[in-house]
Amino acid sequence: MIAEIVTVGTEILLGNIVNTNSAYLAVECANLGLTVYYQSVVGDNEERMKAVIRTALDRSDVVILTGGLGPTEDDLTKEVTAEVMGMPLVEDAHSKERIERYMKEYKKNNSQRRITSNNYKQALIPEGALVLDNHNGTAPGLILEKDGKIAILLPGPPVELKPMFTEEVYPYLRKKQPEIIYSQVVKICGIGESQVAEDIQDMIQAQTNPTIAPYAKIGEVHLRITAKASDEKEGKKLIKPVVRELKRRFGRNIFATEAEKTLEEAVVDMLRDQQLTLALAESCTGGEIAARIVNVPGASQVFTHGFVTYSNRAKRKCLGVKKATLKLEGAVSAKCAKEMAKGGCNAAEADICLSITGLAGPDGGTKETPVGTVFMGCCYNGKVVTREFHFTGNRTKIRQQATAHALAFLRECMMEGISKSE
Amino acid sequence: MIAEIVTVGTEILLGNIVNTNSAYLAVECANLGLTVYYQSVVGDNEERMKAVIRTALDRSDVVILTGGLGPTEDDLTKEVTAEVMGMPLVEDAHSKERIERYMKEYKKNNSQRRITSNNYKQALIPEGALVLDNHNGTAPGLILEKDGKIAILLPGPPVELKPMFTEEVYPYLRKKQPEIIYSQVVKICGIGESQVAEDIQDMIQAQTNPTIAPYAKIGEVHLRITAKASDEKEGKKLIKPVVRELKRRFGRNIFATEAEKTLEEAVVDMLRDQQLTLALAESCTGGEIAARIVNVPGASQVFTHGFVTYSNRAKRKCLGVKKATLKLEGAVSAKCAKEMAKGGCNAAEADICLSITGLAGPDGGTKETPVGTVFMGCCYNGKVVTREFHFTGNRTKIRQQATAHALAFLRECMMEGISKSE
Repeated sequence: MIAEIVTVGTEILLGNIVNTNSAYLAVECANLGLTVYYQSVVGDNEERMKAVIRTALDRSDVVILTGGLGPTEDDLTKEVTAEVMGMPLVEDAHSKERIERYMKEYKKNNSQRRITSNNYKQALIPEGALVLDNHNGTAPGLILEKDGKIAILLPGPPVELKPMFTEEVYPYLRKKQPEIIYSQVVKICGIGESQVAEDIQDMIQAQTNPTIAPYAKIGEVHLRITAKASDEKEGKKLIKPVVRELKRRFGRNIFATEAEKTLEEAVVDMLRDQQLTLALAESCTGGEIAARIVNVPGASQVFTHGFVTYSNRAKRKCLGVKKATLKLEGAVSAKCAKEMAKGGCNAAEADICLSITGLAGPDGGTKETPVGTVFMGCCYNGKVVTREFHFTGNRTKIRQQATAHALAFLRECMMEGISKSE
Repeated sequence: MIAEIVTVGTEILLGNIVNTNSAYLAVECANLGLTVYYQSVVGDNEERMKAVIRTALDRSDVVILTGGLGPTEDDLTKEVTAEVMGMPLVEDAHSKERIERYMKEYKKNNSQRRITSNNYKQALIPEGALVLDNHNGTAPGLILEKDGKIAILLPGPPVELKPMFTEEVYPYLRKKQPEIIYSQVVKICGIGESQVAEDIQDMIQAQTNPTIAPYAKIGEVHLRITAKASDEKEGKKLIKPVVRELKRRFGRNIFATEAEKTLEEAVVDMLRDQQLTLALAESCTGGEIAARIVNVPGASQVFTHGFVTYSNRAKRKCLGVKKATLKLEGAVSAKCAKEMAKGGCNAAEADICLSITGLAGPDGGTKETPVGTVFMGCCYNGKVVTREFHFTGNRTKIRQQATAHALAFLRECMMEGISKSE
């Protein structure tokens, strides 16, 4: 079945809020095995809504609309959809009672707010429609079915939309779909997007079911493997050999095989497993690597100290970088990165320290050390390895790339047991 | 003029990424006085793209397309738009040279990566199109004009899209609009959104031209004042008294009156003006405040040291927090924040040090110190002030709010000349 997502609301159209509902619904549709070809956004305007809904019902089997179900005169989604589908509006006793109860409760706790007669507008439903109770607001959701087409009307606020979808719409659509879509993500770091694409070109060319799609993130490449199957068990079975083959090809560059797992989580897990404590010595990233590590709940078990040594004096004082190194090689040098990593380990009495020093720009570049030059060091078991990187883009992009590559570098050093490599 | 935003890409369609580009472009269109009636998303499929682009060009004057400009065979935006508009593709020497230069540079620094012939596909442009150089990637943007219709093709990654829009598309569209929209942003920190809304309720109710619209950001409220005018001079004149009135009402809580100026920039400017050096002592924010400060080009003039003291031992060792304080009051306490700030000033020999310690959760909350409790300290001229905050939300949201409020707190301490307040 083909599904289409239509977002109604001037706020989205003006860019005042970002359309997260569409992304949420798109993922849910994919999980259900519904194919989404189009998403649209239209404002609270009767004529334009009519045109958009008509087109959507014409080219898709299921149209999911969000927003415009509220009590105000601007809220037209129900009225317009009912008109387009030729279903008259009638009062629904059940919905009316629910709204009255909710407003009474609300008024008790929010004495300033009044119940307006408009609220009763929400109790009118297209004749024959299925009413979806809203446990987090007043606007009920609706499912309209006619002539083989389905329109699903959901409230706009994510806090109302999501539970309604999970509890009522998902099971409804699940019954309509004989086939499910099962997918898994394989996340790769330390290899560029085009390299990954080339390395799996044969797999992509030969694919039918499952399919593989690469997505480039900053410093990461995600491969999504998607299978159509009759149930989850079959889906898993179809995907398994593909994941095995990807593991064979990308080996230790794969840091996660779950959609939710982040690179920083993979790093924190590895530190925890190896019972290592981490220190960080950052210059150009200015604390971003530490902030990513601290994103992980429970990071305090492994991460103790971060030094943001932005000045040369801080590098000397906190990390013991030698004056001569700064003078002769400069702060953006392999030697400085080496001394920072070693000094960070000592100062924090940590098992491992990652250091980073570079030039994020926009100014300060020279021919020898252009903007984007970054040196990283990793000290572990008293040994230090360093690596040189050259990133492109503006200051923000350089720093984001440096942070992502630093996490990948740290992971690599831990995996290789840094001492062996020296 | 009526504008329409079309996002091309299966990633958006599948919900793997949220469509922030549409929101960004919608806001920019509003700023330019362009009316947006529709937004659409379509996958990388020739037939469906054709249909969507044809419809968009039919009902709108300007169609802004993002995504699908890359080097792979999936990337069809340019080819399809050119076909729909009847403009043949020709090789553009300038673009070819830029791509070669970019790839050469890239290869030099990333020896594992190879240049593929696909990259040259990006040098083909619709005949007569205006080429927009991409300073942050390989895909050039394009402007196609024919029969009174305009198609603007931009790369999908926000880091490439945004500078290209600001530098090239905005001035281009600006010229096309007879009536201009002139707007100015007044940015406020240290007061909540609902308080700001209440304080300007009378102004909003009385408004015609210009209008005022509040936007809540994390820890900030932005007020956008928008005037319709025949030229910039008239626009400025209309807006001036409103900005003056807002300054009267919100005084020092206004940290910027320009759209581009960030809170961290306001802080860095203030430090620079007062010739102060800054140190940071962070616990729960894990380096995020430092990273925000380092976002500002030239931050090295004022920011020297950041201590991410995530463990108690780090707090003691790097900042000299007393063992007794940690034992009796705990790490999440005003006393600990005070000692961190003082210790940070001493260790970094900085003029001012901001400290932050708190509980971001999800675990570790108690009745006395629930998750979301954050203490900040600011040491300046040997005196320290502290402040207690209680934030709500998940770990990420608590840390983001803490970071934003820390910058506002630091700014406030500098403005008040902390010594006077003790």
